Amino acid sequence: MFVEDMVHLGKVRSEIREIFEYGNKRKQEIGAENVFDFSIGNPSVPAPESVKKAIIDIVENGDPVATHGYTSAQGDAHVRDTIANYINKKFGTDITKDNIYMTCGAAASLTIVLNAIMEKDEECIVFTPFFPEYTIFIKESGAKVVQVPGEEGTFQIDMEKFEAAVNEKTKAVIVNSPNNPSGVVYSEETIVKMCDILRKKEKEYGHPIFLITDEPYRELVYDDIDVPYMINYYDNTFVCYSYSKALSLPGERIGYIVVSNKMVDSKDAYAAVCGAGRVLGYVCAPSLFQKVIERCIDDTADISIYKTNRDLLYNSLTEMGFECVYPDGAFYLFVKAMEDDAKAFCEKAKEQELLLVPADSFGTPGYVRVSYCVQTEQIEKALPAFKKLADSYK
Amino acid sequence: MFVEDMVHLGKVRSEIREIFEYGNKRKQEIGAENVFDFSIGNPSVPAPESVKKAIIDIVENGDPVATHGYTSAQGDAHVRDTIANYINKKFGTDITKDNIYMTCGAAASLTIVLNAIMEKDEECIVFTPFFPEYTIFIKESGAKVVQVPGEEGTFQIDMEKFEAAVNEKTKAVIVNSPNNPSGVVYSEETIVKMCDILRKKEKEYGHPIFLITDEPYRELVYDDIDVPYMINYYDNTFVCYSYSKALSLPGERIGYIVVSNKMVDSKDAYAAVCGAGRVLGYVCAPSLFQKVIERCIDDTADISIYKTNRDLLYNSLTEMGFECVYPDGAFYLFVKAMEDDAKAFCEKAKEQELLLVPADSFGTPGYVRVSYCVQTEQIEKALPAFKKLADSYK
Repeated sequence: MFVEDMVHLGKVRSEIREIFEYGNKRKQEIGAENVFDFSIGNPSVPAPESVKKAIIDIVENGDPVATHGYTSAQGDAHVRDTIANYINKKFGTDITKDNIYMTCGAAASLTIVLNAIMEKDEECIVFTPFFPEYTIFIKESGAKVVQVPGEEGTFQIDMEKFEAAVNEKTKAVIVNSPNNPSGVVYSEETIVKMCDILRKKEKEYGHPIFLITDEPYRELVYDDIDVPYMINYYDNTFVCYSYSKALSLPGERIGYIVVSNKMVDSKDAYAAVCGAGRVLGYVCAPSLFQKVIERCIDDTADISIYKTNRDLLYNSLTEMGFECVYPDGAFYLFVKAMEDDAKAFCEKAKEQELLLVPADSFGTPGYVRVSYCVQTEQIEKALPAFKKLADSYK
Repeated sequence: MFVEDMVHLGKVRSEIREIFEYGNKRKQEIGAENVFDFSIGNPSVPAPESVKKAIIDIVENGDPVATHGYTSAQGDAHVRDTIANYINKKFGTDITKDNIYMTCGAAASLTIVLNAIMEKDEECIVFTPFFPEYTIFIKESGAKVVQVPGEEGTFQIDMEKFEAAVNEKTKAVIVNSPNNPSGVVYSEETIVKMCDILRKKEKEYGHPIFLITDEPYRELVYDDIDVPYMINYYDNTFVCYSYSKALSLPGERIGYIVVSNKMVDSKDAYAAVCGAGRVLGYVCAPSLFQKVIERCIDDTADISIYKTNRDLLYNSLTEMGFECVYPDGAFYLFVKAMEDDAKAFCEKAKEQELLLVPADSFGTPGYVRVSYCVQTEQIEKALPAFKKLADSYK
């Protein structure tokens, strides 16, 4: 009667959502301050003051019809121009507004790009661990998901396994760095090797293999870590960006796609993106927030708290005996479960009121994700619980 | 290399867009005040003052993280509750927040519903004239478009033709009233007859046939015209609503789907909507504007100017000898071209600097759409041009 897959996807909550709902119930039972919820990747810092100022100024002084009016499907020309200039200045590229397509956030960017390029039965590679919704988006485009396990322990790309996975059906590769759920940033060395393999395989099979970079966490890196800008390393790249994390605007659904100007048939690629956006019902990205982005292009939310949290959590947990992947970015700590079954480990954590996410659905059984986009105080209060959890395995 | 259909859809601008671009060029050549652009269905009145107040109050006094944070995928619970109560009070229904799914506007509502219910090779009926993007949305869901011609002259539903078009593959019917491009509102008589046929056919074929109502123009009706609320007439109804026209917020992409509580397996239907939204990459509807809607639920933009325009344009054009469909709603006048070829007629109109849209792509060759969401002054200034156009056919 209804499309069965859709009913199923609508009914089956993601594992993260299940834990989140459990947490809400538990908080009502024993008080919010006694539950240590590390399950959700929701920015915990507000948008910068400049966002508030921009919104108020635009609605008070902007043309009232244009402020909330349709923009062109690809986004307001001035906004796209501002973004292109910003990217060029920051990364030394030479794109223009005609390489930028504004979207309703990273998920929209990904579904649009996938629908623009993937044909039935073609393959899209993802590296584990990966954001579970990728599989849903890839399948919707008609294509197949191919999982390539990341390098155990570092979760950089395992080049041998990657090369072995590429075949003539491979049309695209999704890269997510800084990574959800591992917090890992792919090094320049990793990027260069991966791109070399891709170029070699493109020649071998006589058709392009597209790189899709999903980078909502680009600005969330700590210390002096560099996140290589992919279109400087590989021509056939689509960048999927979102302001959800950088400006703490996840609910506003605002981001963009960059279609590299060096891509093969770049204009056709851009047209395909426009066509896919149209087909999926994305008329335009929200107009007020397009204009907000233009004014706040240089800003980010105050992400220093994430570094504080990262350092506190990583140092404390490793000291307690947990094996943690060192996270250079995002706001996740990826921790090896102290038994084979990560779900059982998370159940045991619940006994200490710790809510962690088993990483099975991320393609990496045996690990758990700890989201540290929380108040630092919560981490401080949770440390004895982590200690008890570790001790229970001794 | 890219999906061919997508490249094509991205390159081929809609006819309306082509005319709009021509208009911009022409305005630069001879001055904006000398071009009479009736091509675009963009609200010409600003959002009400209450929208501005709500935005400023929310960003100044709301919780800064929650204001721009993710809502649940189906939308903020309080917002959905407010909308359900509003609908119940206005239309005597008994829905709850669990029948409401917030969307990024009407196009998103339609693509989500279609992806939730349509399987490959099933058929979806549309009545001419219809909004051309319907065909794109229906095809994307894998289904087939079946056009049923509206009643010549009145553009109510032709019941004989409709009944003949329904077959065992018919899964859905899209109804758009007030109608783009004709301005026609389906009478209660039309609705009752159509629903009777649908119920009869459901019995005959032993499966539900869903009604999808696309109603962004619901509030744009003049005089004492009543727009029947479909879920009171037919149980298997999905209502696709948008605030684009009622609140003049077309660029903000905010609307909702109502899954009738009386629908067969209503909970599965709602789940399928949630699943389809997830698959298409709609994480949630824009969060700030969800909260704005909650506060402005009783308001509309000042749409009185559209009635002024409707009366002026309809009366003047019929007096000049144009055959016009009387528009009870929306902001379009549907005019019979004075020669068989509406495109040729529109070219002739261009000689008078009148920009009209031939309705071929709406499924009704021989007609043109005149959008009167413009300043009344533009209509007044354009009347001599319309007169010259009419005279040129005498």
